[in-house]
Amino acid sequence: MAPTLADAEKLDAVDPLASFRDRFVVPDDPGLVAYLDGNSLGRPPKATAERLQQLVAHDWGTRLIRSWSEGWMELPFEVGDRLGAAVLGAAPGQTVVADSTTVCLYKLMRAAAAMRPGRTEVVADRGNFPTDRYVVEAVAAECGLTVRWISPSPGAGVTPAQVHDVLSERTAFVTLSHVAYKSAWIADLHAVTAAAHGAGALVVWDLCHSVGSVPLDLDDAGVDLAAGCTYKFLNAGPGAPAFLYVAAALQEEFAQPITGWMGNTDPFAMTSDHTPAPGMRRALSGTPPITGLIGVDEGVKVVAEAGMHRIRAKAVALTELAVALADELGHGIGLGSPRNPEHRGGHVTVTHPDAAALSEKLIAAGVVIDHRPPDGIRIGLSPLTTSYAELHRAMTVFEEVVSGVIGRGQ
Amino acid sequence: MAPTLADAEKLDAVDPLASFRDRFVVPDDPGLVAYLDGNSLGRPPKATAERLQQLVAHDWGTRLIRSWSEGWMELPFEVGDRLGAAVLGAAPGQTVVADSTTVCLYKLMRAAAAMRPGRTEVVADRGNFPTDRYVVEAVAAECGLTVRWISPSPGAGVTPAQVHDVLSERTAFVTLSHVAYKSAWIADLHAVTAAAHGAGALVVWDLCHSVGSVPLDLDDAGVDLAAGCTYKFLNAGPGAPAFLYVAAALQEEFAQPITGWMGNTDPFAMTSDHTPAPGMRRALSGTPPITGLIGVDEGVKVVAEAGMHRIRAKAVALTELAVALADELGHGIGLGSPRNPEHRGGHVTVTHPDAAALSEKLIAAGVVIDHRPPDGIRIGLSPLTTSYAELHRAMTVFEEVVSGVIGRGQ
Repeated sequence: MAPTLADAEKLDAVDPLASFRDRFVVPDDPGLVAYLDGNSLGRPPKATAERLQQLVAHDWGTRLIRSWSEGWMELPFEVGDRLGAAVLGAAPGQTVVADSTTVCLYKLMRAAAAMRPGRTEVVADRGNFPTDRYVVEAVAAECGLTVRWISPSPGAGVTPAQVHDVLSERTAFVTLSHVAYKSAWIADLHAVTAAAHGAGALVVWDLCHSVGSVPLDLDDAGVDLAAGCTYKFLNAGPGAPAFLYVAAALQEEFAQPITGWMGNTDPFAMTSDHTPAPGMRRALSGTPPITGLIGVDEGVKVVAEAGMHRIRAKAVALTELAVALADELGHGIGLGSPRNPEHRGGHVTVTHPDAAALSEKLIAAGVVIDHRPPDGIRIGLSPLTTSYAELHRAMTVFEEVVSGVIGRGQ
Repeated sequence: MAPTLADAEKLDAVDPLASFRDRFVVPDDPGLVAYLDGNSLGRPPKATAERLQQLVAHDWGTRLIRSWSEGWMELPFEVGDRLGAAVLGAAPGQTVVADSTTVCLYKLMRAAAAMRPGRTEVVADRGNFPTDRYVVEAVAAECGLTVRWISPSPGAGVTPAQVHDVLSERTAFVTLSHVAYKSAWIADLHAVTAAAHGAGALVVWDLCHSVGSVPLDLDDAGVDLAAGCTYKFLNAGPGAPAFLYVAAALQEEFAQPITGWMGNTDPFAMTSDHTPAPGMRRALSGTPPITGLIGVDEGVKVVAEAGMHRIRAKAVALTELAVALADELGHGIGLGSPRNPEHRGGHVTVTHPDAAALSEKLIAAGVVIDHRPPDGIRIGLSPLTTSYAELHRAMTVFEEVVSGVIGRGQ
């Protein structure tokens, strides 16, 4: 039998993360039944609101330019290290916050291609997020590489066996998402990384849909390069800057193409020639985006306090509830995510031929999800702010929408 | 005779922009005699503080992901157009806010090289800001171009005659700063652009030190490509995103290398192949940095209200006062900026062999300037927030510092 609202409320009553919702700005909004899109944009931490005021009044407003030497210059590295320790499984000195995810991926793929000269292929996922596909195509064209595309099964994702099949001594690097943006499939980070290394290739992991949702152990897995976004499960704010990870062992040969003053050995020496800085500073290009970085900092702190293992446990329980209730919907609704929670990240995609129209009706009825073409409706679960009862109420509305009780003829 | 403090106070009394200081957050800071570094980081507009609160409470906090379709998607273009109209002399549809200045310059230079295939040289300024020099070297290396460096005279900048001397049918593009970061020399935007076009080359202008300080007429001058920073005279906040300008006539052939989902024709269609969007959307890569963009928006609004011609008039008057008082300093202080205000932007650089040590003493004495190696002390004048009396008091402290009354033996 499907879980009832009372069952969901019982889960909330014993949820060790329940109190974290109070750490976020959650305005009273009678029109909103449930916010199930925290995997596109997480809610604002209250601490971020306070920190932005402090920024304007003190660091920017009072200390002015002096703040660069009083902390801002180190902020991309400090926040990166905090993120590395609490979320990525990365020792200090390997993570930095900079630029958009797209720009970060471009830098990493260009650097990866340069570190494997003479190799002629790159392995990528046909089902990956558009930015990943467009960037790998562009980098391949620039560097004279051929893309070996892997096509994952619908509702799943790339397997180590599929990677193995296309790997060879020609492969410069493999680039995949750890959690697939449509299906939520969790790729086998350890096995794919090991397979790539076995062929002498590098890996470039996109962590956008796993960071802050699925525990990561980049150092332990021997990951070479990774990037990810901060405005989803890290709740850093709209368009907040992304992060880059470069394994310590690779940093000396890591050369990215956008050589700005902030990546130079001594930015304020303003030397005539560009000498890449030691360590992760060389991954930077322009002036760090402090306003956005503050959002990353506060978002990471809340996640660190909650702990990735508690977050993952609740994410599994939430997605299990979503799958159980989705199974009851009928009316042509299918499951577009793995049924086994071990293979499923922090969201659940359900499928329907009229997904676009259904999505509009759901949003109009106060259930905020998102539509992913052609047939996906993505239900995002944010363990720090989504309650079991909220999800249950949303799925009741969903049932009313698919059965035509709500929105008929719209 | 040098102007007195009373003279400066008289100028303040009749300053039509005097009231604009109240539009900014200017905390009471007894240790600060004068802030003369608004050309590195402008002060925060009060409206930005309010807008950030509104962002967290409403757009991000309440509307959440829905804000993307309710305004955020268009914000980079709306703010770009406002900037274009009020500050750049650019008709709508040619300016967009995106990424850091470094990343924007990289995109523009790569695009410029691609638009002049077969040409083998690029013209650049040996005295330009580090990012400009490092990026042009990197792009030249990638694209197989040779950099033809121009070395400007100290205290001045690149002249049209110098550009003319190195231009040829081999030149792909010319890249210069409109206002030089050290000397404040104003390059002849019209003449250099015309000279480049005469040789069939493109121009890539860096407007970092002119935007919001010196009136611009990009359309009228026939400028091809330009980028600039928003955290100086536009007061957009630390590390706020930069802007890109691409002349309408070039947009169809404009192809930048960092092809993310936001530059695609329809980002949310998530198509399998990258088709660059029409117009300026193709200049975007990743998700727009909304928190930073809000700062640009409010900064531009204040500048628009004050008007570029009033801002320029006060900038000239402030730099004239700075030069007059600097001339009185003696003790080896020289002028590192043009004496003719027609050739001088919004700051004045004075020179001294011990500029580094003097700069430290000035900052310790409450006069915030910045040091530019090897021998420059840069006095930044922000017409919206700097008063004549503030500048006069600073120059009195400067006299005490250079004559050893303050800071002897430090």
